[in-house]
Amino acid sequence: MAAADEKVATRLFVEEDLAAGAVLGLDRPRAHFLRTVLRLATGARIALFNGRDGEWLAALEGLGKGWASLAVLDRRRPQVAEPDLWLVFAPIKRGRIDFLVEKATELGCAELHPVMTRFTQMERVNTERLAANAREAAEQCERLSVPQVAAPLELGKLIDTWPAERHLLVCAERRGAPPIAAALSAAAAEPGAPWAVLVGPEGGFADHELTALERLPRAQVANLGPRILRADTAGLAALAVLQALAGDWR
Amino acid sequence: MAAADEKVATRLFVEEDLAAGAVLGLDRPRAHFLRTVLRLATGARIALFNGRDGEWLAALEGLGKGWASLAVLDRRRPQVAEPDLWLVFAPIKRGRIDFLVEKATELGCAELHPVMTRFTQMERVNTERLAANAREAAEQCERLSVPQVAAPLELGKLIDTWPAERHLLVCAERRGAPPIAAALSAAAAEPGAPWAVLVGPEGGFADHELTALERLPRAQVANLGPRILRADTAGLAALAVLQALAGDWR
Repeated sequence: MAAADEKVATRLFVEEDLAAGAVLGLDRPRAHFLRTVLRLATGARIALFNGRDGEWLAALEGLGKGWASLAVLDRRRPQVAEPDLWLVFAPIKRGRIDFLVEKATELGCAELHPVMTRFTQMERVNTERLAANAREAAEQCERLSVPQVAAPLELGKLIDTWPAERHLLVCAERRGAPPIAAALSAAAAEPGAPWAVLVGPEGGFADHELTALERLPRAQVANLGPRILRADTAGLAALAVLQALAGDWR
Repeated sequence: MAAADEKVATRLFVEEDLAAGAVLGLDRPRAHFLRTVLRLATGARIALFNGRDGEWLAALEGLGKGWASLAVLDRRRPQVAEPDLWLVFAPIKRGRIDFLVEKATELGCAELHPVMTRFTQMERVNTERLAANAREAAEQCERLSVPQVAAPLELGKLIDTWPAERHLLVCAERRGAPPIAAALSAAAAEPGAPWAVLVGPEGGFADHELTALERLPRAQVANLGPRILRADTAGLAALAVLQALAGDWR
């Protein structure tokens, strides 16, 4: 049977290079997961990806208390690039931020950028936990890569260092802001262009923040309808519309 | 100051008719919420809506242990209709279904229909809890109505009783299904048409289910991109794209 068609017990992201004949070990928690949660035995088939070499079929070679070794067999899928899409978001409270990271991963974000704004309530953001959430979501949604979680940045710093070529869709209730579909009409004409979606905290953006954002050459404030959306809802809604109109859902 | 501009301590959905001079009482849990959580005193301003009479400014007239009375003052906003949009969804596990209902409310759904399908894992669905979630989300997102939560229905029964004029967007990984933006291109030409989004359980739809759905005159299977989306993600993403292209986000 072709490697691509073989049924696998689970799908794991690994750091190591993947090639036929490679053997690799798993860390304690994941070995425990295979043995105690999935109750796998040697010979079990597992899919592996590392964000570089595509997806590979592997066999569980050995398994013990706290350790597991995998033998890499054949390639199931070649590596493909995710859309060049970022989510820039003000940290919101636990649970909601975990949900946002999971959804952003499924919706195809390449990078996740926490940004501290004037009305951001959270003082700290646990980027390690967010990265673990992103990895788990990537393993489950058949992605061949895991979104990078960047270190938190002040909004002013983000604006000062913003890459000139990257489009920025700012989700805000700004008087006169165009509806999101209209704001993205130009994007559809420029397939593959780098994009980012920015969502503020529950309190929204300060006026001076929106004014500074609007000065960015490729920034566009967009309106998400008559209802007040929570920050996590706005983020995943904007990502979905962007993917549908200008991303890899077309 | 105009009633519409007055700052309010909170926003509540009530069953009673709303008109200037009306006085109404709150149930124990909400009276407790105003007194102990929000720590309001008499005279505090509160916004009220009932899904029929628009949004009204009210004053906290009296407040005690387990009771509160409100005096309705002036109307803040006239009633407006939400889009005629349903979400039809296979029950998924608690937490995820609660998020789905909250988001569907923010995204403007008028009705929420649980549907039991071949691969639905959950045997029961707590429609009372879902209705409470929908009410709370409506109170927070400035809606003037609360989505109705319908009783669960078998998919076959849903198909047999489907209203002929209602468009149905079926989210499924079906070979050859058009991308969602293409599937909705007709919709944009028919503003205000009744729509529904259907999402299956984590296991997806059985082939015979998809075949039966595709026989509905206005049903359209749509594709949501190359990644495997969780049921809740697919539902929210489809609702967002529908609102952006054919709903009240335009």
